[in-house]
Amino acid sequence: MTYHAPVRDMQFLLNTAANFDAVRETGAFEDLSDDFIEAILGEAGKFADEVLAPMNWTSDQQGARLENGKVFTTPGFKEAYGQYVDAGWNSVAFPEEWGGQNLPNAVALAVCDAMQGACISFAMGTMLTTGAVKALLNHGSEEQKRLYLEKLVTAEWSGTMNLSEPHAGSDLATVRTKAEPQGDGTYKIKGQKVWISYGDHDMTDNIVHLVLARLPDAPEGTRGISMFLVPKFRVDSEGRLGQQNDIKIVGIEEKLGQHGSPTCVMSFGDNEDCLGTLVGKENEGLKNMFVMMNAARIDVGMQAAAVGEAAFQKALGYAQDRTQGRAFGVKSGPAVSIWQHPDVRRNLYTMKALTDASRAICLANMVAYDVARRSPDEATAKAAKEREELLTPLSKAFSSERAMETTNIGIQIHGGMGFVEETGAAQFNRDVRICAIYEGTNGIQGIDLIGRKLGMGQGKLAYDFLDEVDENATALKASGHEALVRAGEKLASEVASLRQNTEWMVAAMSSNPDDGLAGGTPYLEQFGYVTGGHYLLKSALTALSMKGGDSDAYLDGRIHIASFYADNLLPRAAGFAAAVTAGAGTVAEVDPALLAG
Amino acid sequence: MTYHAPVRDMQFLLNTAANFDAVRETGAFEDLSDDFIEAILGEAGKFADEVLAPMNWTSDQQGARLENGKVFTTPGFKEAYGQYVDAGWNSVAFPEEWGGQNLPNAVALAVCDAMQGACISFAMGTMLTTGAVKALLNHGSEEQKRLYLEKLVTAEWSGTMNLSEPHAGSDLATVRTKAEPQGDGTYKIKGQKVWISYGDHDMTDNIVHLVLARLPDAPEGTRGISMFLVPKFRVDSEGRLGQQNDIKIVGIEEKLGQHGSPTCVMSFGDNEDCLGTLVGKENEGLKNMFVMMNAARIDVGMQAAAVGEAAFQKALGYAQDRTQGRAFGVKSGPAVSIWQHPDVRRNLYTMKALTDASRAICLANMVAYDVARRSPDEATAKAAKEREELLTPLSKAFSSERAMETTNIGIQIHGGMGFVEETGAAQFNRDVRICAIYEGTNGIQGIDLIGRKLGMGQGKLAYDFLDEVDENATALKASGHEALVRAGEKLASEVASLRQNTEWMVAAMSSNPDDGLAGGTPYLEQFGYVTGGHYLLKSALTALSMKGGDSDAYLDGRIHIASFYADNLLPRAAGFAAAVTAGAGTVAEVDPALLAG
Repeated sequence: MTYHAPVRDMQFLLNTAANFDAVRETGAFEDLSDDFIEAILGEAGKFADEVLAPMNWTSDQQGARLENGKVFTTPGFKEAYGQYVDAGWNSVAFPEEWGGQNLPNAVALAVCDAMQGACISFAMGTMLTTGAVKALLNHGSEEQKRLYLEKLVTAEWSGTMNLSEPHAGSDLATVRTKAEPQGDGTYKIKGQKVWISYGDHDMTDNIVHLVLARLPDAPEGTRGISMFLVPKFRVDSEGRLGQQNDIKIVGIEEKLGQHGSPTCVMSFGDNEDCLGTLVGKENEGLKNMFVMMNAARIDVGMQAAAVGEAAFQKALGYAQDRTQGRAFGVKSGPAVSIWQHPDVRRNLYTMKALTDASRAICLANMVAYDVARRSPDEATAKAAKEREELLTPLSKAFSSERAMETTNIGIQIHGGMGFVEETGAAQFNRDVRICAIYEGTNGIQGIDLIGRKLGMGQGKLAYDFLDEVDENATALKASGHEALVRAGEKLASEVASLRQNTEWMVAAMSSNPDDGLAGGTPYLEQFGYVTGGHYLLKSALTALSMKGGDSDAYLDGRIHIASFYADNLLPRAAGFAAAVTAGAGTVAEVDPALLAG
Repeated sequence: MTYHAPVRDMQFLLNTAANFDAVRETGAFEDLSDDFIEAILGEAGKFADEVLAPMNWTSDQQGARLENGKVFTTPGFKEAYGQYVDAGWNSVAFPEEWGGQNLPNAVALAVCDAMQGACISFAMGTMLTTGAVKALLNHGSEEQKRLYLEKLVTAEWSGTMNLSEPHAGSDLATVRTKAEPQGDGTYKIKGQKVWISYGDHDMTDNIVHLVLARLPDAPEGTRGISMFLVPKFRVDSEGRLGQQNDIKIVGIEEKLGQHGSPTCVMSFGDNEDCLGTLVGKENEGLKNMFVMMNAARIDVGMQAAAVGEAAFQKALGYAQDRTQGRAFGVKSGPAVSIWQHPDVRRNLYTMKALTDASRAICLANMVAYDVARRSPDEATAKAAKEREELLTPLSKAFSSERAMETTNIGIQIHGGMGFVEETGAAQFNRDVRICAIYEGTNGIQGIDLIGRKLGMGQGKLAYDFLDEVDENATALKASGHEALVRAGEKLASEVASLRQNTEWMVAAMSSNPDDGLAGGTPYLEQFGYVTGGHYLLKSALTALSMKGGDSDAYLDGRIHIASFYADNLLPRAAGFAAAVTAGAGTVAEVDPALLAG
C-alpha cells in the first residue's frame, strides 16, 4: 500500500474540529467554499501521492551528500522541486502582491500535511522557505522585499534559518556570530552555524539565509541579536545574481533519519567577505525570529502528524495482507489476516486516533493563527491570538510525541519485518524523531506552556479553553449517542482534573517556580491528551449531526475513532496528573556518581 | 562517559527486590555469599566494560556481512568471543557435569545484564547458545549430550534456534520444514528458516542449530512439530568435526539495529543432504522449544533493561558535560550544565527508574525460576513456578516497552546531537527495538498473560501476587518515611484498581474472550507498572532498613529513584485501567477503506 494523502480526513477535521468557518467569517478571503478547498487539497494530495511519495524511500537510501563543498540532493528531488514550484504549492498562503494565492494558512497547513506525509525530507526544505517568507513579510525592508520576496514566495529560491551555533542550541542568548557594518547598508558576517537544514542544495539558483548575529557593542544576551539576510549568491539592485558570497559548507550531519534533508554546518565569512543586510531593527533579531518560529512550531506538529499518517497507512495495508494465526481458541483452519486480531486493530486505531487528534490540534491552532491576523473584529482577533499562543506548544509537542509512538507501533504491526529497513516502516520512526527536538525541544515547549502561556493573564488562556472543553463535554453528554455520552463523561472528568492542575500550576509558577518547572512535561502531556480528545470529540459530535446521507459509513468511522480515543487514550491524561504536582522534591539532585552504581 | 556495568545496583536489586535469599534457602548451591556474588559480578562487569563496550559502536558501523555464503562478524568480535569462552562467562548457570559452574540462573542473568548493556549485538549470540544448552539438558539424548553439551556450555560452539519461516512467524503451527527419517537414527532436513540470529558467523568451529520441522505424516498444527539438532559441521561418534552439512546462508537482513548480530535466512537441505538428529520425542518439538523460550523471554527483558541502562549512563554523562541556559528567570551569567534543569533531571530519573523497575522484575522472575527448579520443598517450588509463569510476560514486555522509551529519552537529552548517529545515543534506541518483537511480540505476551496465565487456577497466580503487593503497600505506609508512606498509599490504590481489572479479565476470558482480548495490551501495561513499582518500592523499604552506615548516600539515592517512580510513573497504571475493560466494541471492525479518507 502506497501513501495516499487523507484529503477527506483533513477537510473533515478542518471544518469540524478546527472550525474553519471562523476563517470564512473574517471575510478576508474570496472563495473558501467546501468545493474549492476540496479541489485544492485534492490536487495537493495528487501531487504528494504521485510525485513526492515515490521518492521517500530513495531519500532514505540515497540521502543528501556533500562533494567539493556542494550539496547534492536525492535523485529526483530537483525535478520534483521544479514541479512543486510550477504548481504554486509554496505560495498558497501568501499575499497576491508577491505572487501568492491569498489563502488561509490553515489551508496551506493542510497542503503541508499532504507533502510531509509523502516525503518529509523533501517537504522540510520548502517549510523553511515559507518561514523565510514570513520573516521578510513582517520585517523586511522595501528593498529586501522587492529583491527577494517573490522568488521566495514561489520557492524559486529557497530560504533557511540560521540560529544555532555549536555552543548555542536551545540557548540562543549566547550567539557569537558577528556582523560588522560596512557603512553602505551592508554588513560583514562572520561565524559558524550548525543544524542548518537545506543550508546548501542543488535545487534552486539561489538560497536566502536568515542569520542571527551580533553587531559590535550589542548588548549581551537575547537583546543584542540582530537578523541578517545573507544570500548564497549576491543579488544586484536589478535582482540579478552576482558573485558567490563567502559561505562555506563545512559538513553535513549523518543523521538517524531525514537523510534526504541536508543538515549543514556552515561557516560564514572565513575570508572576511560574507555580505548581508539587516532585517528589521537592530537587536530585535531574536524577537523577530520567534514570530516566525511560532508558525514553524505548528508546521512541525503537522509534519509529525503527517508522518504518523503515512506510517498508519503502511501498517494498515500490511495488516490486511499478512495472514498469521486464527481467532482465539480456534485450533485449525486457514490463517486469517492479522487485521482480524483484536490487538492489531487496537494498535491501528491507536495510530489513527493519535494522528487525527494531533492533526486536529494543529489545524485548530492554524485557524486561530489566521483569525488572529485577518479578523476585522478586534475582540475576535484578540481571542484567536490567545488561542493560537496556547495551542502552539501543544501542536508542536503533543504531535511530535505521539508521532514517535505511532510510527513505533507501525514497526510493531510489521513484526520482524518492521525491524528490516527495506520494509520502510522503520524509516517513518527515524524520520520523525527530530520533530520532538527541533524548533524548541518538547521540554522547552513545556516551559513555554507553564511559563509564558499560563503567565498571560494568570492562566486566562488556559481557563478560556477549558471552559470550551467543558461546553463540549456537556454537549456530548446530551448527544443521545451511547459512546459519545460516555466520552462526554470522561472528557468532563479529565478536564476537571486538568483545571485543578492548571490552578496549581499558575500558583506554583508565581510563588515557587521550581515546583512548577518539575511538572512542566507531565502537565504538557496531560493538557495534550485532553486537547486532542476535545477536538476529536468535537468533530465526532458534528459528524453525528451530519448523518442521514451517503456519508454515513464514513461518519460512523469518524465517530468510532473519536470514541476509541475517549475510551482508550484520553484516560492517559489521568496517568500524568499526579506527576504534575509532585513538586521540586521529586527531581531533587541526587549525586550523579551514585546513580549508576 | 563510557559504559560501566552497574554491578552495585544489580546486586542491590537481586538481594532486595528479587529476594535472592530464596535461592540461598534452596540449599542447592555452594557459596552464594554476598562477597562471592560481588566478586563474580565485578569480574563480569570488568569484562563487559573493557572488552565488550569498546566494540559497541563498531558493531553498528561495521556490522556482520555475508560473503560467498559465509558470515563475517564485526572486527574484534572473534577475539572477544575467545576471551569470553576462556573466562567461562557462558557456563555460569550450568551443571558442573557439563563443565558449568552450578550457579543460579539469577546470577547468570545479572552477568547477562552486564554483557548486553555493553554490546547487545555480541551478547545476543551467546544468549542463544544458553538457550540451546537448556534444550539439550532437558530433552537431549545421552549421545547428544555427550557430543554437544560441554562444547555449548563453554560456548566453544554456538547454538541457534530455528523456528520461523517466511509464512510462519508468531504462528508456528504452520511450520513446513520437513524431516525424513533415514532409518539409522538420522533425519534429512529440508526447508527454509528466517530470523535466525547468528545462523552463521566466524567465531566458533561449529554451530549447533536446533530446528523445528515436521516428520512425514505428522499431525497438522502445533502437535506435529519435532525438534532436530542440525550441526553446521557433522560430528562423529568421537566428537570430531566432519563434513559440512547441507545448509546454505541465503542472506542476512539489513536491520534497523543490532547490525553486529547476523540475522540469517537459511536453507536446509537444498541438495537433499542435510542431516540432523531428533531432540526429545517426536511431535513434542514445539512444547519443548517453549520451555526454553520462557527463559529466553526473561533474557530478552533483561537485555532490554541493560540497553536502557547504557543509554541512561550516556545521557547522564552528556547532561553533566553540556552547558546550556541558566536557571528559570536568571537572565545572565554563565551557562549551567543541563543536569541543573529540572526537566532534564526528570528525564534522567525516568530513565533510571524505568530501567531499574525492569531489571528488578527480570531478576525476581529468574529467582522464581531457580527456586522452582531447585527448592527441595514441593510447595515452595510450586509457588515459585507459578510466580515464574506470571512474571515472564511482564519481564519480556514491560522491560522492552520501557527500554524503547528510555532509549528514546536518551536521544532527547542529547538534543540535536541525539539525532546525529556518531553520538551513539540513537544506536541504543535502534538496537533495542527488536526486543518488543522477538521471542513473541508484546501483543502475544498480553495474550499469554490474560489467556494462559490468568487461566491457571482462575486468576490464582495474579491474586497471590497482588496479595504480596498489598502487603508491601501496607509495610510502606507503616515505614514512617514520608516519601515511602506516600508511595505505599499510591501502590495500595493502584493495586486495588488492578485487582478489580483482574477480576473483570478473568471473568471476561472465560465468558466472552473477545472482550478480554481487546484489553490484553492495556492490562499488561497496567500490570507492568504496578509490578515495577512493587519491586522498586520493596527494595526501597529494605534500603531504609539498611541505613545507618557508610552506604547511606547510596541507599538514599535508591529510595529517591523508587519514590520518583511512585510519584511520577506508577500513576501511569491508572491511565491504562479504563482501556482494559472497554470491551470488544472498542476495537470493532471499521471498513479499512474508510480509515484513511
